[in-house]
Amino acid sequence: MAQNASELEFRTVAVIMAGGIGERFWPLSRENRPKQLLPLSASGKPLLLDTLDRLDGLVDAENRFLVAAAPLCAEISRSTGSLKPENYLVEPARRNTAGCLAWAAACLLARGADPDSTVMVALPADAWVSDQQAYRKVLRAACEAAARHPAIVVVGVTPTRAETGYGYIELADNTPVFQSADGLPVYPVARFREKPNRQTAEEYLTSGKHYWNAGIFVWRLDTFLRELEQAGTPHGAAIPRMADALRRERHAEAECIFLDLPSISIDFALMERARNIWVVPADFHWDDVGEWSALERILPRDSAGNAVSGNPALIDVSDSVIYQDPTASGITVAALGVRDLVLVVTADAVMVLPKSRAQDVRKIVEFLRGRNNE
Amino acid sequence: MAQNASELEFRTVAVIMAGGIGERFWPLSRENRPKQLLPLSASGKPLLLDTLDRLDGLVDAENRFLVAAAPLCAEISRSTGSLKPENYLVEPARRNTAGCLAWAAACLLARGADPDSTVMVALPADAWVSDQQAYRKVLRAACEAAARHPAIVVVGVTPTRAETGYGYIELADNTPVFQSADGLPVYPVARFREKPNRQTAEEYLTSGKHYWNAGIFVWRLDTFLRELEQAGTPHGAAIPRMADALRRERHAEAECIFLDLPSISIDFALMERARNIWVVPADFHWDDVGEWSALERILPRDSAGNAVSGNPALIDVSDSVIYQDPTASGITVAALGVRDLVLVVTADAVMVLPKSRAQDVRKIVEFLRGRNNE
Repeated sequence: MAQNASELEFRTVAVIMAGGIGERFWPLSRENRPKQLLPLSASGKPLLLDTLDRLDGLVDAENRFLVAAAPLCAEISRSTGSLKPENYLVEPARRNTAGCLAWAAACLLARGADPDSTVMVALPADAWVSDQQAYRKVLRAACEAAARHPAIVVVGVTPTRAETGYGYIELADNTPVFQSADGLPVYPVARFREKPNRQTAEEYLTSGKHYWNAGIFVWRLDTFLRELEQAGTPHGAAIPRMADALRRERHAEAECIFLDLPSISIDFALMERARNIWVVPADFHWDDVGEWSALERILPRDSAGNAVSGNPALIDVSDSVIYQDPTASGITVAALGVRDLVLVVTADAVMVLPKSRAQDVRKIVEFLRGRNNE
Repeated sequence: MAQNASELEFRTVAVIMAGGIGERFWPLSRENRPKQLLPLSASGKPLLLDTLDRLDGLVDAENRFLVAAAPLCAEISRSTGSLKPENYLVEPARRNTAGCLAWAAACLLARGADPDSTVMVALPADAWVSDQQAYRKVLRAACEAAARHPAIVVVGVTPTRAETGYGYIELADNTPVFQSADGLPVYPVARFREKPNRQTAEEYLTSGKHYWNAGIFVWRLDTFLRELEQAGTPHGAAIPRMADALRRERHAEAECIFLDLPSISIDFALMERARNIWVVPADFHWDDVGEWSALERILPRDSAGNAVSGNPALIDVSDSVIYQDPTASGITVAALGVRDLVLVVTADAVMVLPKSRAQDVRKIVEFLRGRNNE
C-alpha cells in the first residue's frame, strides 16, 4: 500500500475527541457544560470552537467529525452550531480515547471511507495553541507523512518547563525519516513516556529528545487498523465488526461490540506498544488546559502575575487565578493578601484552593456528589 | 455629694454606643447593616440584641438608650424592635465615642436626669460575652462603686492571649478600694495603655496587673461632667450647654454645639487623662468582634479548627473562617487545601483573605468605594 501512497488522492478527516466531562473545571464545568465548551481562552470563545477554527485550510468542514455521547453532542450542537448533524459520531457510551477513536474509525469505514487513502487526524477538543499558522504547518506535515508512510505520526511539543502533568514522547534518533513540503523534519519515536516525576521532568526538559505528547495522532485508517491488531488490543478486531454492523444498519449490534471494549486510553492501548511511530516537533505554545492553574499560561496576566477574568477587586494579590464568570457579574468579588490561589466565582458556586492543588478539584466534585446523594 | 450617695436612690441608665459602621465586616456589613446588626454570635441573633439582653435584671427597659445617627437608628429599630422611640438618642452626626457620650449625657440631663443620682453605663453595641451571669455581676459591682464614689469605673477583662488589637488597663495597686455586695473587688487604675506591640502584649499577659479595656465605662453624671472638665476637653462645657438648648427645644443650637466638638474617642478625651479611675476585673470571655478572624473565637469550631457558618464543602481546610451568609444558601461554596483563610460569601459578594490580614478589609471597602466613584 505504502508504495502506491504517493500516487493516490488522499482524503483528510479530523476526529475531535469531545467526550470529556472536565470535572477539573468545576464549578464552571458541569455535566452538560464540559471544559471544551468553556470560554477559557483569551479569545473568549469555547476551546472547542478554537479547535475547529484551527482546522481551517487543513480539513474541509464536511470532513470534521466530533465524537461524544448523545447528550453532550446535543449540547455542543446548541453551543457551537458549526457542524452538521452527520458530523457528530455519537458514542454509545464513554470508553476512553481508544474506544472513542475505534468508534470513529468504524463510523468512517461504514460510511465508505477507503482505509488506504483516508488520513485520520485525531485531536483533543480542548487544547490551547498559541500560533494557528505554526499549528497548521505541523499538522500538514503530519498528514503528509502519514499519507505516504504506514506510520503513526504524532505531534510533539517542545517543552518549555519541567511539566509533570503531561506524557512525553522520546526521540529514537535525531536523523529525520521524512521532511514535509514546508521543510519540517519528522523523526522516529523511541517510546512514549508516562507523566514523569519532578526530577525526570527536569531531565526531559534539557535532554533535547523529549517532547510533550499533545494527544494529536495522525494515521491512515489502514495503518491504524494494522497497528491496533499488532498491539494486541481488542479494538483492532472490533473496528471492522462495528463498521460492518453499522453498514448493515444494525446499530444495536455495533453498540454491543463497542460496550465490550475495555475502557482504556489510546496511549495505553496503542502508543505505548506500537513500533512505527513518528513525531513532528512543534515549537508553538501549547497547553492541555487540564486544570484551573493552566489559565495563568493561556490568559493575559496583570503586573502582579494574576490571570484575571471578570472585574474582581484585587489588593496585594499575586500569581493567582481569579475567575469571575460572566454569569456572576452582579457579584462583587474581592481578594486581599493572597498568592498562588485559585478563586472561581459563578452565579451559583464559589471555589477557593491553592494553585498547587488545582488537580484536586475532582475531590470537591466527588464530595458534592456524595453529599447530594445523601 | 459622695458622702450622701449611699442614702440616695440611684437610677441606672445604659447608653449603648451603636453608631459604628463596622466596615471590617464587609461584605456582610454595609452602611445600612452595620456590625451590631449582624447575626455573628453563635446565638444567631444580632450582637446588639445580645447586648440588650445582657442588661436584663440590671437596667430597666425604659432606661436603656441607644445612640446612633438617624438612618442607623431607623434601621436598628426595624431590625430589633425592642426599644421605644424615646430610647433612641439620635446623634446629629458622628463625633466618635467622646461626642456620642457627651450627646447622650446632654439628652439625659435635658430630660431631667439628676446628675448626682444617675449612674450611666456606657457600652459598645457589638461586643461578645461568654457568660451573662458573670457579666451582670461585674456590671452591678461597677454601678455600685460608681454610685457611691466619684470615680469612673471601668470593666477590665483578664487577658487570655497576647492581643495587640485591644487597649489595656493597668492596675495602680493590688489592694481593692471597694468591694461589691457580691464580693467583687474593685481596684484603682494607674493608666490606660494603647494597643501594644507583640512583645509588650506578651508582658501584659503575664504581668497580673493588665486587663483588656472592654470599652465599658460607668460613672455618675456629675462625676462624668467634672472629670471631663478636669481633663480639659471641650466636651465638659458642651454638655450643659447642649442640655440647656435641648431643654428649651432649640435643637439646632444643640446640634451646632455638638458639631463643633472634636471627633475623638472617650479613651483619648478622658480615660488617658482622668485621675480617678477604678476597674472591676472580669473573668468572663469577652471579644470586641473587631474583624472576621474574631469569629473563630466566638463561633463553635469544627475538628479542624474552622469556624463555619452555612454549609460549605471543606476538604483539607483548617483554622479558617468560612462564612456563608443565609442569603447565599443557594450558592455552593467549596474550599480545598487552605488554612488560616477567611472566606465570606453573601448573595452579592465574595471575599477571600488570610486571617492575619482580616483588619485590612477596610482597604477593600476603600478600593470599592473608589471604583464606584469613578
